[in-house]
Amino acid sequence: MKIETDHAEILSGVRWGKTIGSPVSLFIENRDWKNWSEGMSPEAGAESSIAAVTRPRPGHADLAGSLKYGHHDVRNVLERSSARETAMRVALGAVARKFLAEFGIGIGSYVVQIGTRKAGIEGHRLRDSDLLGLFRKAEESPVRCPDAEDSKKMMRLIDRAVKEGDSLGGAFEVFVTGLPVGLGSHIQWDAKLDGRLAQALLSIQAIKGVEIGAGFGMAGKSGSELMDEIVYSSSRGFYRKTNNAGGIEGGMSNGMPVVLRAVMKPIPTLRKPLMSVDLETKKPFRAAYERSDVCAVPAAAVVAESMTALITANAFLEKFGGDSLDETMTNVRAYTASLKRF
Amino acid sequence: MKIETDHAEILSGVRWGKTIGSPVSLFIENRDWKNWSEGMSPEAGAESSIAAVTRPRPGHADLAGSLKYGHHDVRNVLERSSARETAMRVALGAVARKFLAEFGIGIGSYVVQIGTRKAGIEGHRLRDSDLLGLFRKAEESPVRCPDAEDSKKMMRLIDRAVKEGDSLGGAFEVFVTGLPVGLGSHIQWDAKLDGRLAQALLSIQAIKGVEIGAGFGMAGKSGSELMDEIVYSSSRGFYRKTNNAGGIEGGMSNGMPVVLRAVMKPIPTLRKPLMSVDLETKKPFRAAYERSDVCAVPAAAVVAESMTALITANAFLEKFGGDSLDETMTNVRAYTASLKRF
Amino acid sequence: MKIETDHAEILSGVRWGKTIGSPVSLFIENRDWKNWSEGMSPEAGAESSIAAVTRPRPGHADLAGSLKYGHHDVRNVLERSSARETAMRVALGAVARKFLAEFGIGIGSYVVQIGTRKAGIEGHRLRDSDLLGLFRKAEESPVRCPDAEDSKKMMRLIDRAVKEGDSLGGAFEVFVTGLPVGLGSHIQWDAKLDGRLAQALLSIQAIKGVEIGAGFGMAGKSGSELMDEIVYSSSRGFYRKTNNAGGIEGGMSNGMPVVLRAVMKPIPTLRKPLMSVDLETKKPFRAAYERSDVCAVPAAAVVAESMTALITANAFLEKFGGDSLDETMTNVRAYTASLKRF
Amino acid sequence: MKIETDHAEILSGVRWGKTIGSPVSLFIENRDWKNWSEGMSPEAGAESSIAAVTRPRPGHADLAGSLKYGHHDVRNVLERSSARETAMRVALGAVARKFLAEFGIGIGSYVVQIGTRKAGIEGHRLRDSDLLGLFRKAEESPVRCPDAEDSKKMMRLIDRAVKEGDSLGGAFEVFVTGLPVGLGSHIQWDAKLDGRLAQALLSIQAIKGVEIGAGFGMAGKSGSELMDEIVYSSSRGFYRKTNNAGGIEGGMSNGMPVVLRAVMKPIPTLRKPLMSVDLETKKPFRAAYERSDVCAVPAAAVVAESMTALITANAFLEKFGGDSLDETMTNVRAYTASLKRF
Repeated sequence: MKIETDHAEILSGVRWGKTIGSPVSLFIENRDWKNWSEGMSPEAGAESSIAAVTRPRPGHADLAGSLKYGHHDVRNVLERSSARETAMRVALGAVARKFLAEFGIGIGSYVVQIGTRKAGIEGHRLRDSDLLGLFRKAEESPVRCPDAEDSKKMMRLIDRAVKEGDSLGGAFEVFVTGLPVGLGSHIQWDAKLDGRLAQALLSIQAIKGVEIGAGFGMAGKSGSELMDEIVYSSSRGFYRKTNNAGGIEGGMSNGMPVVLRAVMKPIPTLRKPLMSVDLETKKPFRAAYERSDVCAVPAAAVVAESMTALITANAFLEKFGGDSLDETMTNVRAYTASLKRF
Repeated sequence: MKIETDHAEILSGVRWGKTIGSPVSLFIENRDWKNWSEGMSPEAGAESSIAAVTRPRPGHADLAGSLKYGHHDVRNVLERSSARETAMRVALGAVARKFLAEFGIGIGSYVVQIGTRKAGIEGHRLRDSDLLGLFRKAEESPVRCPDAEDSKKMMRLIDRAVKEGDSLGGAFEVFVTGLPVGLGSHIQWDAKLDGRLAQALLSIQAIKGVEIGAGFGMAGKSGSELMDEIVYSSSRGFYRKTNNAGGIEGGMSNGMPVVLRAVMKPIPTLRKPLMSVDLETKKPFRAAYERSDVCAVPAAAVVAESMTALITANAFLEKFGGDSLDETMTNVRAYTASLKRF
Repeated sequence: MKIETDHAEILSGVRWGKTIGSPVSLFIENRDWKNWSEGMSPEAGAESSIAAVTRPRPGHADLAGSLKYGHHDVRNVLERSSARETAMRVALGAVARKFLAEFGIGIGSYVVQIGTRKAGIEGHRLRDSDLLGLFRKAEESPVRCPDAEDSKKMMRLIDRAVKEGDSLGGAFEVFVTGLPVGLGSHIQWDAKLDGRLAQALLSIQAIKGVEIGAGFGMAGKSGSELMDEIVYSSSRGFYRKTNNAGGIEGGMSNGMPVVLRAVMKPIPTLRKPLMSVDLETKKPFRAAYERSDVCAVPAAAVVAESMTALITANAFLEKFGGDSLDETMTNVRAYTASLKRF
Repeated sequence: MKIETDHAEILSGVRWGKTIGSPVSLFIENRDWKNWSEGMSPEAGAESSIAAVTRPRPGHADLAGSLKYGHHDVRNVLERSSARETAMRVALGAVARKFLAEFGIGIGSYVVQIGTRKAGIEGHRLRDSDLLGLFRKAEESPVRCPDAEDSKKMMRLIDRAVKEGDSLGGAFEVFVTGLPVGLGSHIQWDAKLDGRLAQALLSIQAIKGVEIGAGFGMAGKSGSELMDEIVYSSSRGFYRKTNNAGGIEGGMSNGMPVVLRAVMKPIPTLRKPLMSVDLETKKPFRAAYERSDVCAVPAAAVVAESMTALITANAFLEKFGGDSLDETMTNVRAYTASLKRF
């Protein structure tokens, strides 16, 4: 998931710095591909160039994917299921972000937990400007945590895991600021913005849970503590002083920042051995890996920003339509003005 | 969400107890409709029969929906966004469940928390038979909790909330047993079974978070503690002794029970007053409701079973195809047999 | 296909004469249902109430549908595949038409051939007002043909077919007037408006071909004869003097009337016997039907109007977005104004 | 549309000659791209490298696309709307064809008309082997026409059009042989196979009409002449002696060859001048083009084969499911065997 150094080439859909309506397609070269020109060749005839992988790793797509597709070489599964695939999601998300930025919509993320270390940050208690501030700080932290003290602790936990040949999971938050009220819809289960965002985040490798606003913390509280009361001022229109709902009510953006939190399991490829079974011999073996990342939570947060950007841009265009930035901008402004007159 | 007493009429798609391929459509009559024959009439001309609702309730779709659609009568939003809509989801889910049951697939749920009371149940630590046992016990509990002591405590919390004019949220688990390995896919973000299930659960009114298997608890543990090691026996094939993954790896069912947990916020309609603002006068008011449910967690669990059934049945048919139960059954058996020979 | 006398009840989505954003659902009662309460009952147990139909009719879905779904009673296929189903398409299309009419978009149809009698009408040679005039005349003709002389001849052909126990097909045209330029798109095969309209028309029972503008007649002509030259006036903007393209270029509406022509095969249920084979005995039999329509071309034209309205309304909303008539209207006007300034 | 010499590189989804379940992506390099490295550069800053095209060509997407997307340089439309895009359809179709060939399904095409010259071929009157024979002959003809005499005449018409600076359209047929009964479905308008095929063919540049089986010729005939009577033999099962339906009844394949015919308008880019209007000056001009193809009907037929292959493969997988060729093959065989026992 070390995506920062990849380079995406634009193959179509952009001319002179602007999209032109045709599909935007991007290309990211696997810089390692030369080592795989035979091992992953599309041509028949190179089958003997590399031995089949017959040892599925626990915690990966390896076993389920091999059985489903009838693969006797796990490599046919593991290359595609690898989180390297998310490099393209980040590249595509960058396009969506740029589009949203034209409308004053910002997207960011920061890490709130790695291993046992929790940063005491709850994004749903914060305003737009504070969220953006956390995001800026996170961008400077090696573990994407806005708090310097927490960052240090997290790095120490990672160092210890490296020594022990173990790996760590964690949690992060993604937010969207500046979203107009009314994206998504209450009218149908699959139109709800929260469900669509949750699917997108859970589609990232190793993510095992998503919550919105106060999330799981809401189970133990009473209704009177949690509802975001409605207030009004002539300059801001309708708004809230709290944001336990995380910016979404009834499946629609409500004008407050959208705040999501996701959990990532530890990377399942460890130096510490795990038991597994060979696909062909059916004999048990101890799976151990010399080289692997130890914690991918910061990288997953970046991917989550991109998935959030893509879903949000879709919901945005559903509401506002338009075939050019000018046309969509005109439509957005007309809607915003109508809200003032409401 | 008191769905138990509704009656669904089959309008099409079923003949003599069997589906015939054409769309299955169901009809649930709103038994209260006579009181609304003018107030919700499709015909123009009855506009004066009932006053507009101009007071949006915090925590509902009311405000966002009114602004989005330009409604000056909140009733145009609140009737559709109401959880009464889930009665149809339960009815449709019943069809999907029956279909899945033909293949030995079971779906159930139980409540694990209401207000501050948590039942110490973690479904991802349990086997198929234990999960089904919890489900049966839950069906006998007024709060859908398998533990008698917890049930009593939860009921007492509800009674207290009634007295205080407040409401309670909670958490529940949904599980799927008997699922063959390989539903969903790792190949594309939107093919992943976990993401699709998460969307479906979050699309239920007031659900604010979803986790799979050990879920958020995975953030603070190390990789070596959490991976579900792979074992093999000639009778069972490949399987696991633990199920922290909650039955899904790489976006695919892995043959273990699928276990999801969801959190529900307290019902936002309270007797205790909440501040809001009138849509027309822009003046603040205190929103209070004499009659309302206090806790809908048990009902939401039932809805979640249905959504899980619908998503699972879709993924099942994607893999196995077939235009009749016989054809699909033949295909499933051939796949199962091929796994034995793998 | 005698749809005129059906009555559609609005079950949801409309209040006081206006849609409110929630799904519009309609209900058309089969007035004959009492005679089928056992024969088509959803309940098991009525299997002996009516004999199975084991004789598939040539030209219908009967045989392919029975084999595909494994039905040994053809009635499980024929009830759903019947053109009676189009009554609902017409009802839903009426909603789409009303929506489009708010934007000055008109949809109509007329019959141009029944049996060997062709009316010498080519809609792609006509202007908006002339097309609407033909539509009005067609509405007064028993065979939906705008020309009085042709109508008479067509009726005589139908009378003769009745006597001979035979059936007749024919052809009709559907048009859309007032469409803004730019619905659909050239960017992707499935975004093209012509393809989507063709699918919709071919989805009507017994339709076997669709052409746009000059259609099949273009095969034998040269490019210089057929291209619709572009002209401009400050009042109308860009327009054409001819419309061989039938209002669609590059998969997009070009501002001229959209004109489609479809062919319908004769109704396959005849008094004259056709050979077929019994599903169970595998013995040949002579299929003959006492009562059946002889020509459904006028009814099919009405259904085609509705399918055209539904597809057009979808393409319209894709471009213009909006969650209320006001919002969409504002967006449309802004686009139209931008075209004037282009 | 001279697609024969393009070379498609497989970027993903294929290993050692077999698909592995992940998305198959192909890359076709535009061999002319070096001349466009500035003119079509994704980077801002090269705007002055090439003059804007402001002269929309009649018969193309130029005008509608420019107005829709707000482009003041027609090149932003014409590059994407060009039929060169179909090279990729052909490449993707080749994958679908190979898949279908594993199941004995063949797809082919031949030209039946160019300009005023019609070949007297009607594919719906032919058997599988005859269709495949025509296809083989067509592959040897420079105009893709199976008849030598017609081919010569067509070539002479093309030569004359070249001299006159004009262009020619025509018509072709596409067929599918070996298709099992029951692909597509009668149950929903958008499940019907004929509608989906029609959309796919009409989505090809310059195609203006599609018909199935006897098509438009059915308008003038009676039902008793046209219905394909059902016969049975223990070796072949149910079949037909005629195929006016073109292999599809009730939106489903009926076991007979699927035969479609499409019309292509003449290429709209001519040496003979056509009148148009400059987008910027609004002044009329005479549009003339020195170099252009004169007739693209043979190439369009090849594209149509590919679109037919893609749609058919989709419908095939909907019915039979499966995640490997083995699994799908097993399912297909079980279905075929069940038809024998029907």
